[in-house]
Amino acid sequence: MTDDLIQRHDEDHIATLTLNAPHSLNALSQAMIARLTAELDRLAQDRTTRVVILRGAGRAFCAGHDLKEMQAARATPDKGAAFFRTLFDACAAMMQRLPALPQPVIAEVHGIATAAGCQLAASCDMVVASDDARFGVNGVNIGLFCSTPMVALTRKVPPAVAFEMLTTGDFLPAPRAREVGFVNRIAPAGQLSAETRKLAATLAAKLTAAVHIGKRSFYDQQGLSLAEAYRLTGERMTENMLWRDTEEGVAAFLEKRKPDWAE
Amino acid sequence: MTDDLIQRHDEDHIATLTLNAPHSLNALSQAMIARLTAELDRLAQDRTTRVVILRGAGRAFCAGHDLKEMQAARATPDKGAAFFRTLFDACAAMMQRLPALPQPVIAEVHGIATAAGCQLAASCDMVVASDDARFGVNGVNIGLFCSTPMVALTRKVPPAVAFEMLTTGDFLPAPRAREVGFVNRIAPAGQLSAETRKLAATLAAKLTAAVHIGKRSFYDQQGLSLAEAYRLTGERMTENMLWRDTEEGVAAFLEKRKPDWAE
Amino acid sequence: MTDDLIQRHDEDHIATLTLNAPHSLNALSQAMIARLTAELDRLAQDRTTRVVILRGAGRAFCAGHDLKEMQAARATPDKGAAFFRTLFDACAAMMQRLPALPQPVIAEVHGIATAAGCQLAASCDMVVASDDARFGVNGVNIGLFCSTPMVALTRKVPPAVAFEMLTTGDFLPAPRAREVGFVNRIAPAGQLSAETRKLAATLAAKLTAAVHIGKRSFYDQQGLSLAEAYRLTGERMTENMLWRDTEEGVAAFLEKRKPDWAE
Repeated sequence: MTDDLIQRHDEDHIATLTLNAPHSLNALSQAMIARLTAELDRLAQDRTTRVVILRGAGRAFCAGHDLKEMQAARATPDKGAAFFRTLFDACAAMMQRLPALPQPVIAEVHGIATAAGCQLAASCDMVVASDDARFGVNGVNIGLFCSTPMVALTRKVPPAVAFEMLTTGDFLPAPRAREVGFVNRIAPAGQLSAETRKLAATLAAKLTAAVHIGKRSFYDQQGLSLAEAYRLTGERMTENMLWRDTEEGVAAFLEKRKPDWAE
Repeated sequence: MTDDLIQRHDEDHIATLTLNAPHSLNALSQAMIARLTAELDRLAQDRTTRVVILRGAGRAFCAGHDLKEMQAARATPDKGAAFFRTLFDACAAMMQRLPALPQPVIAEVHGIATAAGCQLAASCDMVVASDDARFGVNGVNIGLFCSTPMVALTRKVPPAVAFEMLTTGDFLPAPRAREVGFVNRIAPAGQLSAETRKLAATLAAKLTAAVHIGKRSFYDQQGLSLAEAYRLTGERMTENMLWRDTEEGVAAFLEKRKPDWAE
Repeated sequence: MTDDLIQRHDEDHIATLTLNAPHSLNALSQAMIARLTAELDRLAQDRTTRVVILRGAGRAFCAGHDLKEMQAARATPDKGAAFFRTLFDACAAMMQRLPALPQPVIAEVHGIATAAGCQLAASCDMVVASDDARFGVNGVNIGLFCSTPMVALTRKVPPAVAFEMLTTGDFLPAPRAREVGFVNRIAPAGQLSAETRKLAATLAAKLTAAVHIGKRSFYDQQGLSLAEAYRLTGERMTENMLWRDTEEGVAAFLEKRKPDWAE
């Protein structure tokens, strides 16, 4: 039942995707990556969904790649080389779809988020975590350095923090993850979904087009020089100002009333 | 009385610029941006001023663009397009003058610093804030994503923190802003100006030429590779070492006495 | 006795290098830089050493350049220009050897780490500090801005924090250095060496080849676009998966036993 690997629930313009392979701690098998990719591609075209929540069923958010599947792939003449290359390419392509998605994506993390599971959380725009959640890039413990998870992680936490996690395999507890700006909000385990939903609802209440142009600009301007970044975002701000709904939003603010948006 | 939009006070080689439009929470109107730009251009040539403090009169540091002025600009045939483009260009040019200025610039923030006001604080080299100050890039609340403020903000705070502020419109309180390294120092509201002045005085007591070459190098080496950054700064260090005042500074240190600087 | 400038102690695959010029607070004289460079070059070829610890003898980790030596160099016709250039080049080349080394390098910092001494700590992959250790880039106090130390520092701490340290000359205490992600672990002074050694032993117990490919990838992917970084690290992950020891590591994990590594 491939289709159960991802459960999707839609409510109030918020799509919740639940990784549903609890027996493997929601391992990112080839099938899981393919399903998640397909779901994200669908969301990229979806005009109704305003915010996406990504979570895991069972005891953990996600424990990374499916090691059994990977080990089994060694039985080919090339000892799995083609399989591994294909798998890492597909996984990296899926991860890059998260910042590329028009909608903001919130990771709702409980239990552990390890290796490619930690990468998945780091690839989301924001993270809400239960207060006992832990993040790890601990492939080094089994001789497989978390090189691809490192890409997402080092773009979210200070370099020395990332280096320690990657080389020791030690977990970063949620409170410290919040302190360094990796986790946005923390909630007791029992209130994690409510807290994540509250954040999602806040975003869903904004003018969708403004959130979309903003998320796109956020990633487009990263790494540009100050002058280039301002050139790009100045154009986007001008475009944004000319929308009918933004005209109404500014007017409503000046008149101290709620905006009447057409979208 | 255009000239009252910025009040300038000079004392002990410290220039304090006060945004003075308290009725509009020191909104960055076209006139305010022009006046601030002119003042910064004057400071760039000013050999006496060693440190600049930027603050706001009234209840807040700065609440961003002048929305009334922007809304009024829609009455043109192009619905304000040319006005908005010109405004955002002028604003971005003004913001980029702050890191380009030879002198260090300290933002003294009380009340709120929102939208382009938050960008203004983030464009300064350092921020001293009152303990109840709050930072927001909340244009999203009225349908206008803070795309240009994002440029300055994302170069100062961790990405997930910036993303949350930009998409929720929520405020970042001063203590959390300090934790993540956006705010340098916090003081009770009643002691904010004294605390800012103390920091400015510390800088003003240094060898001015050393602070200037240092600030310039600070921004010039950002984003370069390690090898390029060392090539640039190695040249600047050599140049710095050859100054007469630096020779005297090192000698004084070795002889455990105060330096007798010519500047 | 030039050879005593660096003391090397090897135990359990961990090489400890001790800067040994306590009378000058382990100043980075030409001779010290040359000796440290030679030692790092030896380590780069060393197949036995898995982790490097860098520490200082006496009251401090390292107080930066040897100012007496620099001042004496002014007695040449070019007033020291060639000497300074050569010194800064040699120093920058030595600093860049630390991230380029295959083995992880941990700075064990007690007392003070100032100017090029702070740069030395920031150039290591991780820092363990005593709870009363302090970090400073305080050349500005004597008219010599810490332009080269800034290169390493700004790649480890938030920009406003670095700017304040560089222009005020104020110290960053170890607890705040840990909060912002510059220092990895803090220990009471009496337990500093034990704590550093514990971290080193954790790393030494990993598959060495995995740690090496990981450290190399860590720095290679910095500053690349997401797509480029994933291309690079995807190749490295595939290579890593094909090692015999990694196959064994994954197998051992799935069979819930200790890996039997050949290396």
